[in-house]
Amino acid sequence: MKDFLNVGVIGAGRIGRVHTETLTYRMPAARVLAIADVNLAAAQQLAAVCGVPKATADYRDVLNDPAIDAVLICSGTDTHARFTEEAAHAGKHIFCEKPIAQSLAEIDQALAAVAKAGVKLQVGFNRRFDASFRRVRDAVERGEIGQPALLHIVSRDPAPPPVAYVKISGGMFLDMTIHDFDMARFLIGAEVEEVYVQAGVTVDPAIGEAGDVDTAVIMLKFANGVIGTIDNCRRASYGYDQRVEILGSRGAISTMNNYPNGAVLSDGASVRRDLPLNFFMDRYTESFANELVAFVDAVLHDKPVPVTGSDARVPVVMGLAAGKSYREARPVKLCEIQ
Amino acid sequence: MKDFLNVGVIGAGRIGRVHTETLTYRMPAARVLAIADVNLAAAQQLAAVCGVPKATADYRDVLNDPAIDAVLICSGTDTHARFTEEAAHAGKHIFCEKPIAQSLAEIDQALAAVAKAGVKLQVGFNRRFDASFRRVRDAVERGEIGQPALLHIVSRDPAPPPVAYVKISGGMFLDMTIHDFDMARFLIGAEVEEVYVQAGVTVDPAIGEAGDVDTAVIMLKFANGVIGTIDNCRRASYGYDQRVEILGSRGAISTMNNYPNGAVLSDGASVRRDLPLNFFMDRYTESFANELVAFVDAVLHDKPVPVTGSDARVPVVMGLAAGKSYREARPVKLCEIQ
Amino acid sequence: MKDFLNVGVIGAGRIGRVHTETLTYRMPAARVLAIADVNLAAAQQLAAVCGVPKATADYRDVLNDPAIDAVLICSGTDTHARFTEEAAHAGKHIFCEKPIAQSLAEIDQALAAVAKAGVKLQVGFNRRFDASFRRVRDAVERGEIGQPALLHIVSRDPAPPPVAYVKISGGMFLDMTIHDFDMARFLIGAEVEEVYVQAGVTVDPAIGEAGDVDTAVIMLKFANGVIGTIDNCRRASYGYDQRVEILGSRGAISTMNNYPNGAVLSDGASVRRDLPLNFFMDRYTESFANELVAFVDAVLHDKPVPVTGSDARVPVVMGLAAGKSYREARPVKLCEIQ
Amino acid sequence: MKDFLNVGVIGAGRIGRVHTETLTYRMPAARVLAIADVNLAAAQQLAAVCGVPKATADYRDVLNDPAIDAVLICSGTDTHARFTEEAAHAGKHIFCEKPIAQSLAEIDQALAAVAKAGVKLQVGFNRRFDASFRRVRDAVERGEIGQPALLHIVSRDPAPPPVAYVKISGGMFLDMTIHDFDMARFLIGAEVEEVYVQAGVTVDPAIGEAGDVDTAVIMLKFANGVIGTIDNCRRASYGYDQRVEILGSRGAISTMNNYPNGAVLSDGASVRRDLPLNFFMDRYTESFANELVAFVDAVLHDKPVPVTGSDARVPVVMGLAAGKSYREARPVKLCEIQ
Repeated sequence: MKDFLNVGVIGAGRIGRVHTETLTYRMPAARVLAIADVNLAAAQQLAAVCGVPKATADYRDVLNDPAIDAVLICSGTDTHARFTEEAAHAGKHIFCEKPIAQSLAEIDQALAAVAKAGVKLQVGFNRRFDASFRRVRDAVERGEIGQPALLHIVSRDPAPPPVAYVKISGGMFLDMTIHDFDMARFLIGAEVEEVYVQAGVTVDPAIGEAGDVDTAVIMLKFANGVIGTIDNCRRASYGYDQRVEILGSRGAISTMNNYPNGAVLSDGASVRRDLPLNFFMDRYTESFANELVAFVDAVLHDKPVPVTGSDARVPVVMGLAAGKSYREARPVKLCEIQ
Repeated sequence: MKDFLNVGVIGAGRIGRVHTETLTYRMPAARVLAIADVNLAAAQQLAAVCGVPKATADYRDVLNDPAIDAVLICSGTDTHARFTEEAAHAGKHIFCEKPIAQSLAEIDQALAAVAKAGVKLQVGFNRRFDASFRRVRDAVERGEIGQPALLHIVSRDPAPPPVAYVKISGGMFLDMTIHDFDMARFLIGAEVEEVYVQAGVTVDPAIGEAGDVDTAVIMLKFANGVIGTIDNCRRASYGYDQRVEILGSRGAISTMNNYPNGAVLSDGASVRRDLPLNFFMDRYTESFANELVAFVDAVLHDKPVPVTGSDARVPVVMGLAAGKSYREARPVKLCEIQ
Repeated sequence: MKDFLNVGVIGAGRIGRVHTETLTYRMPAARVLAIADVNLAAAQQLAAVCGVPKATADYRDVLNDPAIDAVLICSGTDTHARFTEEAAHAGKHIFCEKPIAQSLAEIDQALAAVAKAGVKLQVGFNRRFDASFRRVRDAVERGEIGQPALLHIVSRDPAPPPVAYVKISGGMFLDMTIHDFDMARFLIGAEVEEVYVQAGVTVDPAIGEAGDVDTAVIMLKFANGVIGTIDNCRRASYGYDQRVEILGSRGAISTMNNYPNGAVLSDGASVRRDLPLNFFMDRYTESFANELVAFVDAVLHDKPVPVTGSDARVPVVMGLAAGKSYREARPVKLCEIQ
Repeated sequence: MKDFLNVGVIGAGRIGRVHTETLTYRMPAARVLAIADVNLAAAQQLAAVCGVPKATADYRDVLNDPAIDAVLICSGTDTHARFTEEAAHAGKHIFCEKPIAQSLAEIDQALAAVAKAGVKLQVGFNRRFDASFRRVRDAVERGEIGQPALLHIVSRDPAPPPVAYVKISGGMFLDMTIHDFDMARFLIGAEVEEVYVQAGVTVDPAIGEAGDVDTAVIMLKFANGVIGTIDNCRRASYGYDQRVEILGSRGAISTMNNYPNGAVLSDGASVRRDLPLNFFMDRYTESFANELVAFVDAVLHDKPVPVTGSDARVPVVMGLAAGKSYREARPVKLCEIQ
């Protein structure tokens, strides 16, 4: 067993920067040896800030570096599957941002390469590593609420993405709800068999013109009988709204949003507090670090990764089923997808 | 205009007693002149406690009393439609506990009689008069949250009714969810066009054997585009759970449960409070009084009643559609019902 | 033992009306036979509303009525001691609004008359009967928080009384803090030995010109070692603020304010709720009823009253000590007061 | 202006380690060049973890290093004054953990040296940099609550320190309350003129035998008329309890404790959440980083430090006055201290 992990980062955008800083500043067990970005200046700048010895415009410089044990794939979504496949061929362990791809064929090809290479693959469903959601999962696992019966997930963004992004996003179910699909499976610890969707456009007509929806409720039928609902909206005027609630046979557990401070102000108008954390990078700061700690630990100590390739594939199936349910206005079984 | 209303009460059971006490002790504008119950002793006892001059085993003694302006129908559910019809024929204004009937034919016949007689009819959907739900409705009406987009109703009983009751209850959708159907229409101020149900038995297998469900999620598609979900369970181990949440274009509003006290205890184990009010008569005490205040006011001052005959009929249609959706495992439009 | 209590009410002002309505409408075990008020019209009006057979301008008509078992003294504060004494002489059980008097000599004379007559006397410290404060007392009694060490009482009025009232009120410590002195003794279940006061005028200079303060902190040293603080202000812009907190060796308990509804509204500005109940009659509605239930029960069933004459006297001693501490800028032992 | 600050750290204990890690991993604008600790192994280990080039047992190696711009004094409390003085002589900017000393003579000598040298000195009252307390200060500064009138600080440790530590701690007022004295001055933005203390031993008799108290309430009289109370206890069974509340003429602001997660669990026993963060290093994590950011910024950009030498001295005066008040059982003016 090695004492620390040599890591290469592909993609020097927002999430690439966050992960590189985490590895550099918060994780003595990891060392970033190289950063690649097609925008070489971005790679160089990040490398300078974090003291990373190599910056390159070619991701292959990372994959071919024999000193590198593991790669973080933080590049554009359309490259995830291909880079995962190539990294597997190169024998690197892989942490890949979600989704690997929006087509099951691409995902399956990448997962096959990973399986063949025998490397570890962890997918970036960071919310599993949030303290509140982790506490809910613990309650379910420990039986604190008995047998789960009903799940409700509220997942609302503070503001919609640009329409240009919406057009290439794969649609709300694959772009936004996919996190909630993962959360549903994670919290209940069982698979979903069927989905039913009601959706519409209430936030921005341009999103509708782009062929997408911005507001939706997705009903989930789990194999173990649990019934779930996901309440999605591209805009919550009060900020980033991320909550879950589970009713079980012996109790219920729910979570609150995260706030920038714990102050409550009362005056002649109301009793109030400041808005919840508005930006996913603030809301989920710790979860981004925690998932890397888990990944580095899994690789260094040859443990199972906590979010597997299968965990990356199933939410895509759910997203495709949700889209089909919406278009066909009927419940759709997951087994109908491929 | 009269100064006060002379009322007759039919049915001296639990809700009959509550209403009689409210009229007697809290409403100077109303006077109870007679109480009828097939169980004469019950009628007599309640009359004695509340100083009501007449107790009778025959409801017709109430309907035929020319001094009585209005009747409260608090008898068994199977008598509501018939008594409403006869009270209308007798020219009495009517406050009828929900539901008027579980068959649309009976309801329609009763409503026709009411229309023909020109009397007022208010139906006992008391939850509309709860301070928290009223505040939510106010927020919607005033535009405090902008245009509503998503509605979520949590409605869970502390414990299931006896199976013997379940068998004659008309099923959970007509017996329990009917209050939530009313709440959904009330809060959003629009009609539902379609329902879709997932349901099962997680509380008591005997309820399943009786042909009913005890756990359900009902998705609602409103005519104005709002998407709603109702989360129902016959048992919440922590007590009576009654909450709503609406997301609108400019904000959201949600409610908390009601508690017997506002004390928070912290010790080496947790930071906690006592369980929410467990019994619907405690949770909704004020709403039962408020609905009578509104009824008496509507009759005395010839105002529209706040909960109409139509408000009684539509939730039954929704309940029938929910049952059909559950049996046929598909979304059901309300227009499919009759 | 009698089945119900015949009561006479002296004083038809605000609290007299509340108590008369409670006895009339909510307590089958009590019957109001007479109401006296120097303002005869007020007595007559209240009698009419509540169906009380006798209204009089002379309180002696109440005291001399042999059918009356007990009297409620709800008249002006300056009459409490004298009426209590006379009622005792007349052999009536007595519920007297607080304070009996602001002079210990008057209180002692009244209490001596009560003792001599062997009648029951309960004093109107209604807050003891509030569900939240009762829950705190229960926690202390049951040992849920172990041995109490620190007590903090927040007691702030929504707005100061008129200066004309301030001038005859006996000063803030005897007029307002007196309730908190009672609460402190009630919650801890021990006596206070010493008080120390810091106070000033922050709300209304006219209160200062009238020789009083409107803002104060009173430190209490209990015989059992508990240290208490009372945080008083004549104005809280956000409404009536009434909270307590106790730290014990095994935990802590605190209370929240009471709100008109449980709705929480989130928008682009804040996450907020409506202001707490603003008026003491709304905040303490149930406590006013509960204290009468306890009084009627104590008289009918010859039980000890829950708030005794001594409970009326001690807070006056504390108020006098507080005034002395403020004037002399030093801690004052209660034994220094007469 | 330099781009980054070269820092030397004196003291490799708990807080020294935290600060070194913060400077190393979270602050690109700072670089740690040397670590000194009389325990050389501790200095070497920390240097190795953080990549610090020099570790030494002699703090003079830090003070004499011409490359070092600023020093962090994180050694034992009894060395703070001397090291501050010597660092000033050496021309280093200084961040010194609180307190500089428990004797005013030592503090004054150190502050004189700092003044003479013209270096910057910031003292480690980290709580000022906590988001919740910062929000309260902001509310006061912005006038959101109008003119402050009453301040209440709750500051309770999860468990008392070892008695051996208590004996050398300078007593609770100088060891624990000193943070609250600073917080009181910071939040109100005014000076305290007089203190009055009630205190006792309720947690551990051994603390009493050591001549100290473990439970206290300290009343503060501010120059601007605000009245404050500090509620201190060495043990809160439910964890670290750190809250403040201010009443102003136009409103009030209060803070909640910090929790490890936002989950609420309801079952047949209670509605509850996990205990608040129990350890000051967890509760105040961000504040420790924020204070260093401010220090580095102040030195690099020649701005005033946010916590001055005077801010270090005044709380010691308050602590000495509190001790005197307790011993003499009377209010003590700060001007009585030296």
